[in-house]
Amino acid sequence: MAEKYVYRFEEGSKDDRARLGGKGANLAEMTRVGLPVPPGFTVTATACNAYNRLGREFPAGLEDDVWKEVAALEERAGKRFGDPQNPLLVSVRSGAAVSMPGMMDTVLNLGLNPKTREGLGARAGRRFALDCHRRFIQMFGNVVLHMEHSAFEEILYAAREQAGVKHDHQLGEQELEEIIARYLQIVERHTGRAFPEDPKEQLTLAVRAVFDSWENPRAKVYRRINQIPDDLGTAVNVQAMVFGNLSPQSGTGVLFTRNPNTGEHVLYGEYLTQAQGEDVVAGIRTPKEIAVLKDDIPAAYAQVEKVAQLLEDHYQDMQDIEFTIEDGRLYMLQTRSGKRSARAAVKIAVDLVGEGRISKQEALRRVTPEQVDQLLHRGVDPAAQNEVLAKGLPASPGAASGRIVFDADMAERLGRMGEKVVLVRPETAPDDIHGIVLAQGVLTSRGGMTCHAAIVARGMGKPCIVGCEALKIDLGRKELQVGGRNLREDDTISIDGATGRVFLGEVAMVEPELGGEAAEILRWADETRRLGVMANADTPEDAQKAREFGAQGVGLCRTEHMFMQQDRLPVVQEMILAATEAERRDALGRLLPFQESDFYGILRAMEGLPVTIRLLDPPLHEFLPDVEELSVEVALLKERGGQGGEDYRRKADLLRQARALSEFNPMLGFRGCRLGLIYPEIYEMQARAIFQAAARLQREGVEVHPEVMIPLVGDPKELEISRRLVAAVHQEVQGETGARIPLKVGTMLEVPRACLLAGEIAPHADFFSFGTNDLTQTTFGYSRDDAEGKFLTRYLEEKVLEENPFAVLDQAGVGQLVTFGVARGRAVKPELKVGICGEHGGEPKSIAFCHRTGLNYVSCSPYRVPIARLAAARAALED
Amino acid sequence: MAEKYVYRFEEGSKDDRARLGGKGANLAEMTRVGLPVPPGFTVTATACNAYNRLGREFPAGLEDDVWKEVAALEERAGKRFGDPQNPLLVSVRSGAAVSMPGMMDTVLNLGLNPKTREGLGARAGRRFALDCHRRFIQMFGNVVLHMEHSAFEEILYAAREQAGVKHDHQLGEQELEEIIARYLQIVERHTGRAFPEDPKEQLTLAVRAVFDSWENPRAKVYRRINQIPDDLGTAVNVQAMVFGNLSPQSGTGVLFTRNPNTGEHVLYGEYLTQAQGEDVVAGIRTPKEIAVLKDDIPAAYAQVEKVAQLLEDHYQDMQDIEFTIEDGRLYMLQTRSGKRSARAAVKIAVDLVGEGRISKQEALRRVTPEQVDQLLHRGVDPAAQNEVLAKGLPASPGAASGRIVFDADMAERLGRMGEKVVLVRPETAPDDIHGIVLAQGVLTSRGGMTCHAAIVARGMGKPCIVGCEALKIDLGRKELQVGGRNLREDDTISIDGATGRVFLGEVAMVEPELGGEAAEILRWADETRRLGVMANADTPEDAQKAREFGAQGVGLCRTEHMFMQQDRLPVVQEMILAATEAERRDALGRLLPFQESDFYGILRAMEGLPVTIRLLDPPLHEFLPDVEELSVEVALLKERGGQGGEDYRRKADLLRQARALSEFNPMLGFRGCRLGLIYPEIYEMQARAIFQAAARLQREGVEVHPEVMIPLVGDPKELEISRRLVAAVHQEVQGETGARIPLKVGTMLEVPRACLLAGEIAPHADFFSFGTNDLTQTTFGYSRDDAEGKFLTRYLEEKVLEENPFAVLDQAGVGQLVTFGVARGRAVKPELKVGICGEHGGEPKSIAFCHRTGLNYVSCSPYRVPIARLAAARAALED
Repeated sequence: MAEKYVYRFEEGSKDDRARLGGKGANLAEMTRVGLPVPPGFTVTATACNAYNRLGREFPAGLEDDVWKEVAALEERAGKRFGDPQNPLLVSVRSGAAVSMPGMMDTVLNLGLNPKTREGLGARAGRRFALDCHRRFIQMFGNVVLHMEHSAFEEILYAAREQAGVKHDHQLGEQELEEIIARYLQIVERHTGRAFPEDPKEQLTLAVRAVFDSWENPRAKVYRRINQIPDDLGTAVNVQAMVFGNLSPQSGTGVLFTRNPNTGEHVLYGEYLTQAQGEDVVAGIRTPKEIAVLKDDIPAAYAQVEKVAQLLEDHYQDMQDIEFTIEDGRLYMLQTRSGKRSARAAVKIAVDLVGEGRISKQEALRRVTPEQVDQLLHRGVDPAAQNEVLAKGLPASPGAASGRIVFDADMAERLGRMGEKVVLVRPETAPDDIHGIVLAQGVLTSRGGMTCHAAIVARGMGKPCIVGCEALKIDLGRKELQVGGRNLREDDTISIDGATGRVFLGEVAMVEPELGGEAAEILRWADETRRLGVMANADTPEDAQKAREFGAQGVGLCRTEHMFMQQDRLPVVQEMILAATEAERRDALGRLLPFQESDFYGILRAMEGLPVTIRLLDPPLHEFLPDVEELSVEVALLKERGGQGGEDYRRKADLLRQARALSEFNPMLGFRGCRLGLIYPEIYEMQARAIFQAAARLQREGVEVHPEVMIPLVGDPKELEISRRLVAAVHQEVQGETGARIPLKVGTMLEVPRACLLAGEIAPHADFFSFGTNDLTQTTFGYSRDDAEGKFLTRYLEEKVLEENPFAVLDQAGVGQLVTFGVARGRAVKPELKVGICGEHGGEPKSIAFCHRTGLNYVSCSPYRVPIARLAAARAALED
Repeated sequence: MAEKYVYRFEEGSKDDRARLGGKGANLAEMTRVGLPVPPGFTVTATACNAYNRLGREFPAGLEDDVWKEVAALEERAGKRFGDPQNPLLVSVRSGAAVSMPGMMDTVLNLGLNPKTREGLGARAGRRFALDCHRRFIQMFGNVVLHMEHSAFEEILYAAREQAGVKHDHQLGEQELEEIIARYLQIVERHTGRAFPEDPKEQLTLAVRAVFDSWENPRAKVYRRINQIPDDLGTAVNVQAMVFGNLSPQSGTGVLFTRNPNTGEHVLYGEYLTQAQGEDVVAGIRTPKEIAVLKDDIPAAYAQVEKVAQLLEDHYQDMQDIEFTIEDGRLYMLQTRSGKRSARAAVKIAVDLVGEGRISKQEALRRVTPEQVDQLLHRGVDPAAQNEVLAKGLPASPGAASGRIVFDADMAERLGRMGEKVVLVRPETAPDDIHGIVLAQGVLTSRGGMTCHAAIVARGMGKPCIVGCEALKIDLGRKELQVGGRNLREDDTISIDGATGRVFLGEVAMVEPELGGEAAEILRWADETRRLGVMANADTPEDAQKAREFGAQGVGLCRTEHMFMQQDRLPVVQEMILAATEAERRDALGRLLPFQESDFYGILRAMEGLPVTIRLLDPPLHEFLPDVEELSVEVALLKERGGQGGEDYRRKADLLRQARALSEFNPMLGFRGCRLGLIYPEIYEMQARAIFQAAARLQREGVEVHPEVMIPLVGDPKELEISRRLVAAVHQEVQGETGARIPLKVGTMLEVPRACLLAGEIAPHADFFSFGTNDLTQTTFGYSRDDAEGKFLTRYLEEKVLEENPFAVLDQAGVGQLVTFGVARGRAVKPELKVGICGEHGGEPKSIAFCHRTGLNYVSCSPYRVPIARLAAARAALED
């Protein structure tokens, strides 16, 4: 049997989107439930595909089916296509399954020619008929014959000038006739043939134009970027015209069934009387608010209200509607689920639950984690008109304005004085943290989504843009070249961390809000999710914030950030440069009180909840000055004859030691538990600090749950030895203090070998935590500090990779290792607690993977905790 | 039933090593086959374990069994333990399953006391009896009572002085009586009690002493280092004495049934007449060559010859024998497989096959790959007495002497002049290659077994020591401090790459030989192995050498080494620093002829065999000067006011570009196919060079099989795109030249993700080659350039890891990924060719793994090809 290419509206429903397109399916659905829809039919997207496959030929049977349906339409309308007495006019509109710009839009009033116009005029008024005819030629010329809109507008403009009127509807019959004549002339000049006057030819050409537009370059690019399959095709909707321009009791409008910005439950939209659809968007006349319709055409307003209610009842969601009123009677031309702001999405979802329309589960499906994220950060006012200087990677959401500073010390100094500054660097390093803390935001020319600046800024909830390669930063001159401009320290810029845009000057902001409805949604999420949500927090302040956002503990507390603080760094450097174990122990002894007070604060902030503390992880040379800089300093001191001096000796000595510690690939070097095994005194000090802090809090009546995490384990022996060391200190401290602290020691799985040997590692572990940042680096062989600036961006642009594996967990590769790790670990220890503490712990798709893989919890930066709570719930609902 | 702790020699065989120890098992075996072995019994190693487990108590039943066996021994010998008329004397010797220094050795003549001595004297001569008694007290005092040997020797020395004689056997009865009296005095003084005169107590104490010695510190350390299990235990052999010191027709000796140095089929050993066992090793009298025995005691010599023949027939191997002749009658005290030099091992194995004693397969089992390796390199003469300055990691075998040079340019200059130089550097870099080529060997203070210097030197078959941290190198002053000495350029040192020793001055060498027998063994290996053996070769010379060593093709040709040559580097740098694709294509165009001639040479040398060419792999900044050095240069130029100059501008520019290209973790950076995807023109040039060279050779009638290998693939898309690029060039060149070249494109699996996604990658690959160097780095998260110097050595010392994963493939972790790669690749493409081209391809244990895992071939440096051939055969035999 031949494929059925044409469906009458009565034959479809909202579930037929693939064949009928979104618009066609919803027209069918509205027809099915008895709403006032002008009759019509849909030519399927399948037909479009066949047409394009056949080299722009209609497939066999298609035209016959169309004329059969036109005939049926004539029958029902009591009018005939091309009938000079009582002509049928139709609208032709495209409609793919997915809404897509770049496609052919709409042709109204199709079926008109000088003869049918007169027939229409005889029945409905001549001026009205001329107006329709003028509109038809213009739209058809533009969208079917590909003529510039402006060519028609010029003629119209001249006519208004000549007539001395302001609006088109003030033009008289004669003027319209003249305009039509000139329109027909320019069409003939443009196309080389007379305007097609046969309604059948008009319809055929219009359908072709819709099909062709599926293959136009703009549509193709859009599909590629948005990963829409090319063989989706578009449907064509042919519908009997109703006329919003028929009389003063006529009009046309669009509306949302609720306010799409705030979510408030009121009709929200606008309309024009005596107008056709395109007038509302054309902007020549200012539309009126929908509420005014109540006074203008009260009966129509009542119908609109009723239909809106009916549609919400039917679709159980806020709808975006197009309608036309013909002589006081309402007709529905389109309905679809309305786009809405993050704030509205949350409020509408909660309200719909309150109204008993949807379940809590459905509400959780309706709000995306990205919308919750938006609610948590300041944003750039959409109305801001500032010049966009450049665009980088949106590394940490939120917006900030401030004066440019080029180094962390200056950022700190000005920040302390209450100045708003934006720290601009080629990249940041751990010893810039004091400056980042006091800056409004960070902007770097290098690095990727998981570079140092990005991670630190996200952790602090501070706006950050990285990898903004258009910036040419000259640190020596304290200058910044971008897009032909030269900026200096003190010039003001703004950054939008949500989009990666850098603005000149100060931009207007929109403040964040996580109001009562959001809290409600998150409460429902907590009831629904199975995954725990913990936070990555290095300070008591972070821990406090995380707790406020709903974190159920700290999944990763990085002790090295504590080492970087200005008052400790000199002691840390002494420790590193110690020549003997005794010297090292001495320096460590001086670090102990600092560390103890760090842990005291965090454990206190997380009273009653687990705090997972990772022992020292980064290579030691990260705490020393840069070798290149030192080398230059030493060479210059020597050049200046300073060789005998104390300064030279000290610097030369430091250079030698920094060189000895420097590494070719620090990421794969002497760090993590490798440090702890070679210098056990470091981990001993840290373990002591943890248990002493815990003991102190216990005496003060505070319930504590410290968990010690050993980083970078790749072999069971490493964990076995580290665990023994921690346990020994634990026993000592218990002996000294009389406290009874639960001993929990676990490890991060962050190199492939750890995942492969998880079964051998598990016996020594109370918990596993996947460090998916490093695991991604080692599984791919990508250095995150290098890859994004050097090749990853291109890989993503050219679709070598579908997604940035540092942003979204790579399920195909890294995911296998995670799955091994969980399965093998639990095979020997079924009660093993397993979590994730990489950046992926706050990313919705990755969270869904963690849920499916049976992890116990995810851990992410405090500002992502609400997102993770929602994502975890949505993952549970997908099960 | 109680454990049987005591076995008469007649009850055992050579297969009972675990229970009876090596010595006991062989005594039993010789007894079993009717050789003249003095009767005796063995106390099992199981008894030793029980004893130590019980806290140094004999397990129940042990003593009873011993006395039962002693009684049986008395019965057979017709003598009785402690019988003043006809006393039984025994020897007591330890013997574990594995030969082990540090264990208690031997007590002879046990059973003597003043009374039994007189009985012995009455039957065999009083002086002889006194001599035996003196020996017994001394040995018992030393090894059972833990007294210093020197305490006895002093008394003996004084007695000889007093008597005015030179040798012990010249001492008279009276002197011996006096010595014995003084011996007994010092024993009593030392132990606080009289010497135990009861033979039963003597035996009990001696057995205890053997058991105790299993737990002495030296034995424990030895076991730990050699990975011998602690619960192996040692057996104790108790045997009726025969007396080599009885008469002039008596003697004792050791011999090898063949020459253990050369393998020649002649008896090789030495003996002493009128002596007991310890005299031969004591070195007071010079033993005679075994051949002299023919004249001394012809009948005994005939017996020795016959027994040697019998033992070889029985054990089918060269034997190391201990024997005693008592009054012209031969007794066997020990036999074991004889230790032999590499040269002898090969000759003996081949000869035994020739003699029909063993099969070719057995010969292959008898020769180790390490022995073949020894035959391939010059070695340090074992007699060399030069001062050892330091010890580093033995990175590439062979020995070299030469003058110290501290930079590659100087090495090249002096090398070209015919000077022998050793290049000494903190580490080497790719641009040192021209110097390494002309140096005799390389010595570095940093780096590990797979650092740059190690790999390059092994590839060239040049001696190399790396990670020799005792060296303090001052490149500025061209000085080297080591072990208190100050060496300068031009001082001569020698290095032994097989052991890692650095010598002062020039050492005597032993030249390598891979003679006819070795070639024979390798031919048999080729008949036996299933794995192919290919070579890693970057030059025609390497390829030629590899072919001579038996390589079946080139498994890895690294194109970057070609880029490093002095005449090409400037063009390569131009290519890298090109601002536009056009500039880059221009530089590449000039590189094309160089590359084409490289490939021409290698393909020609490997006529008829496959040549796997890996496209450019390392990060581009490896071809640029060091950023730190440049930075200092630029700072100094500026300081000296050279800012306006051309030189400054050029250098500052270069610095800026080198910085932009520099990476935090180059190993995980912008390299491999990532380069080829972002700059396709580079791979295009290389592919063109390969196919043009192949076409030229085809025209010349040379059969060529180039295979193109894409490095560092982690995603199927990468290989798909690269393959398309290579195929396009292939088609172009075929079109231009008319040649028909088979197109083979494969990839290296060298990041974990590639192994995990092997099933998706295989459809685009004609072959896989595991790059296990990088795969080890990424699986462990170890940078090979950093790990060995920084923590891996300690990890190995402290047994955190059992083996260096860069030397021996880590089967537990990396091996899983290899197994995945093979299985998943072959699941979708059963005919997929799979090999390995990391350093592990030349390491025997790793080769065995490759065999078991079903790989098609291994590829290794030319000098390891023979080793790989043998190892592959042995792996096949293990199946």
